[in-house]
This record gives sequence, C-alpha cells and structure tokens, in this order.
Amino acid sequence: MESELIDQLRRRLPDHPLLRKGVGDDAAVLRMAGTDECVVTVDLLTDGVDFRLDEVDPRRVGHKALAVNLSDLAAMAARPLAGVIALALPRRGGLELALALYDGILPLAERYDLAVAGGDTNSWDGPLAVSITLLGQVTERGPLLRSGATPGDRILVTGAFGGSILGRHLDVEPRVDEVLLLAQHYKLHAGIDVSDGLSIDLFHLTQESGCGAELDLHAVPVHDDARRLADQLADGSTALDHALGDGEDFELILAAGPDVARRIVDDQPLGVPVTDVGRFVAEPGLWQTDRQSGRRPLPPRGWEHRLEG
Amino acid sequence: MESELIDQLRRRLPDHPLLRKGVGDDAAVLRMAGTDECVVTVDLLTDGVDFRLDEVDPRRVGHKALAVNLSDLAAMAARPLAGVIALALPRRGGLELALALYDGILPLAERYDLAVAGGDTNSWDGPLAVSITLLGQVTERGPLLRSGATPGDRILVTGAFGGSILGRHLDVEPRVDEVLLLAQHYKLHAGIDVSDGLSIDLFHLTQESGCGAELDLHAVPVHDDARRLADQLADGSTALDHALGDGEDFELILAAGPDVARRIVDDQPLGVPVTDVGRFVAEPGLWQTDRQSGRRPLPPRGWEHRLEG
Repeated sequence: MESELIDQLRRRLPDHPLLRKGVGDDAAVLRMAGTDECVVTVDLLTDGVDFRLDEVDPRRVGHKALAVNLSDLAAMAARPLAGVIALALPRRGGLELALALYDGILPLAERYDLAVAGGDTNSWDGPLAVSITLLGQVTERGPLLRSGATPGDRILVTGAFGGSILGRHLDVEPRVDEVLLLAQHYKLHAGIDVSDGLSIDLFHLTQESGCGAELDLHAVPVHDDARRLADQLADGSTALDHALGDGEDFELILAAGPDVARRIVDDQPLGVPVTDVGRFVAEPGLWQTDRQSGRRPLPPRGWEHRLEG
Repeated sequence: MESELIDQLRRRLPDHPLLRKGVGDDAAVLRMAGTDECVVTVDLLTDGVDFRLDEVDPRRVGHKALAVNLSDLAAMAARPLAGVIALALPRRGGLELALALYDGILPLAERYDLAVAGGDTNSWDGPLAVSITLLGQVTERGPLLRSGATPGDRILVTGAFGGSILGRHLDVEPRVDEVLLLAQHYKLHAGIDVSDGLSIDLFHLTQESGCGAELDLHAVPVHDDARRLADQLADGSTALDHALGDGEDFELILAAGPDVARRIVDDQPLGVPVTDVGRFVAEPGLWQTDRQSGRRPLPPRGWEHRLEG
C-alpha cells in the first residue's frame, strides 16, 4: 500500500467503536461480540461500466461504490457495520483520484455509522476499479432473504423507477434506514434491491422463492426521469418500459402478507413512498396485468452482465 | 452477476457450517456466534502487476490471489473464516477465465476450511483484476499486531527469502497453520508477513512498534531462488540483496522475547525452519550487523507501490 495515501487516510479516517485496529496493520481487527449473524457483500465497480471517469466527478464515483454496497445490506435488512475498500488506480493522478474517491465515500460511511476498516490501494496500467466489501449486522428479525416470498404475498416497492442513467445511478440513496424501520415494525417475508431492473430483479426474487409474480402495470411508480428519458430518446420506448427495465434504481422490492402490506401502504411510514404493485403467485414466471388486456407473460428485462465464453 | 457463472459456482461451492446463506442472495449470511473479535483484510491483484495473465495458468493466479490474503490472516495469527471474491474480467473468454481462477481458489479454500461466501463478477474492457476479502477469527491469544515488538525482542523469520519472481510468488504457501501453532505454544509479541521485502516489511513493523531493528546479515536465510536469480541477472546484485529486497516471499517476521525465541529456534516446531535474524532495539531505524564491519544503517528496500500525484 502507498505510504503517502495511508498516512493521509489515517489522519482522515475517524475512530469507530467497532475498530480495535483500523488502517496500518496486515488486517483490521473488529469487535464483533454480540453479532451472532453477520452478512457480507462485495461489489466491484469499473470505469466504463458503472461510471465514466472522464465524465463525472470521482467523488460521485466513490459515493456510488459505497452506496450500491449499502443497498445490498438494505436488501438483507442488515445494519451496516464495517467495510474495506480496494482500489486499482490508473498510474497517472492516482493519489489525487484516491483521495477524491474517499471524499465521496467517507461522508456516506459516516451517515450510516460504518467503520471504514482499511483497504488495499494499487496502481496499474488499467482503468479505475473500485471494490468495496461490507459487513452488516442482522437484526433480531433475521436477515431478509430473496427466498421468503410465498404465493398470496403482496409485492411492495419503495420509490419510483426508470431513467436512472440521467444521473440517479450515481447519486444512489440506499434504503438502509427505510428497511430497518420497516423490518422493525412490520413482518416482511423477502427482499431484493433493484440494481439490474425492476422486472428482472423481481424475477430473481421469484426464482429464489420458487414462485411467480403478477405485476400490475398501472401501479408501477414511474420516475420522472423515465419520462424525461423516453422523451429524449424518442425511440418508441415508453416511460413504463424504462421503469421496468432500466435498473440502477437501488429501490427495494419487498414481499409481505396482504394485511401487513395494506398496513404499510396505509401508514406510509417512510420518507419515500411504498407502493403495492402486485402479488406473488404459485405459478412460476413473471406476469403483467392491466385493466385492458388481463394477464400476459412479462419478459424480465434489465441489465445482464454478459460473459463471453 | 452472470447467471451462468453463478449456476456453475453454486454447484461447485461446498456447504460450510459457517454459511447460513451463501451465493444467490444480495449478501451472504454468516454464523458468527462465539467470534468476539474478527479480522478483515482485502487484497486486489491486477494483471501486469501481480501476475501476467499471458504467461501463467490462471489457476495459479487464483491460488495466489487467495494465498496472499491468507498470508495477511497469518500475519495477524487469525484463523480463516470466510471470504468473498470480486472479479473484473476481460470480456473475451471471461467465463472460462473465471472458472479457471476458481479452480485455483477452491482447493486452497478447502485446505484452510474457508467458507467461500460469494462474490461479484463483472465483465469490462480492462484487464483482469481480482479482489478477495477475508474474515478471520482471532484466537484466545488475541491478534498479532505489528505494534507489539519491544526493544530486546528477537527477530524471528519463517522460511527463506529472495528470488520469488522465479515462480514462488505465484505458488504462495501462506503460513497460517504455522503461526497458529506458534501462537498456541509460544508467546509472540508482533508479526507481519513479507509481501514487499524482508527489510522494508521489518521496517514497517518497527515503525508501528516505535522501535528499531538490527538485522544480522549472516543469519538471514537466503533462498536458493535468490542465488539462482543473482546468477541469472549477473548485474552485480548478490543473493543476499535479493533476500533483503525482492519481496513476495510471504514468510513471516515475528517478534518474541529472547527466551521464547531461543525455545522456538531450539524446538523447530514447524515443517519450515524458524531462524533468529537479529533483535529489536530502542533506537528507531534499521541496522545491519555482520562480523566484519559492525553496525551500519540498512536502507529498507522492497516493493513500493508508487502513486503519481
């Protein structure tokens, strides 16, 4: 690790009650007593795929890199504990870039009381890659898995969908506080965050739960960005198309029993709207319903990170 | 994440008692009851810096990526618990490459009873980058920190040094079992693994301990590879130079009181030799001693990952 960067980080990284030993050893030492179950998640973001470094402020890149990881913790209804950050930096301007990334990371870490436990920083001839690993604490309600939805459950979503490419995909607001509040007061059965797209992530959830889902197209909250994007593109795609398939909304899809779902929707306990967009059904697959044409298959659409063989 | 790779991995990743939920959700769920302190470490390895993908079998790259992380756990005297693996894969041949990397990772994980808890896999237009994060359990003796050496302690090293570039830097044997055995039977004060170079990593340890060190040059175990490399290069560098500065030996430097150190050296309790190579002193800095010229400053040499501003 670069001693200059480490020196600067040491001065900037705040102490944290979880950290017995932070930056400056071969590994960080975390106080974990009382944490019977923890969750662990990693996301690696790369230049040209998750952001374009030549177009955006690196602080927004740092923010996004941490926020999408926090969104994974939110999907598990886990409280953020600690994280480590690994950077592959282009040789030219690497130190400056690393500090700017941390300028985006640290305020968000502080907001969620996350202990930044250290990391690994490397220079190379490739473009920027940022890998963040987070540990989260499972609450007394247990982790929220993708596999817990049952037929008859309602499909709830936070926020609105579509058009995140216009900028929201960088300025991600992870739904950590929101899910912790919901999990504390209402019985939730399953959850996933929408990274790849509303319809495909809903499909992922049904696959893990061994069921299907009917999405009420009229109920889907369409973001203003989806409308703006459809207007800008003028390629025949509708705002609803963008809401269903764009991805990187980092909102949550949740499963809850009908009574609980009704209470949540009536209470609206979050700063962000919670909307009932359909129901889970026994028959595997994804379906769309609307008032005109009844029930038809809904092809799951969204971001598929393709690998060539 | 790529569904084809995930499907293949799911079939190959063994269950593990630590894993309540492994691959296939937004995060893995780990059973941590009884783990009061854990250590966390991340290393990011990149093509062209830590390996050359066009010259080596990717299975050796996978092995190295996990082994250097295990070596960090060894430096803390921590028992491996769980790990997550993030890959940035070149688009062409990415799936094949990912599977070959896992072919190198999984046998090593199994050998150390490490739960592979999941990961993140991405394609991009850049070269291969592999980021592994490990969790380790601190034993009842506590973590072995860099900061615990005191003047008068002896400097112990495992194995021999130099010339790892001839191949050993890929086929790393992390000293996990060795340090756990030592920590169980002998009181150790401090530890670090030699990734950057024997002299510079010894220097790092003294900096954290607020002391200095005198290295007895005649006592330094020089690896046959260091001799072979000096012969091959024929550039005036000696085998000892390579032992002091080459790095990527992934042996351990340990601090222990004189009586304990003598016992360890007499007992030779490991399959690999343990050698007394000098002592920690109050005066900050690094010193070399030999029979001819007495004590002189020893400039710390080794791998410095430089960042350009």
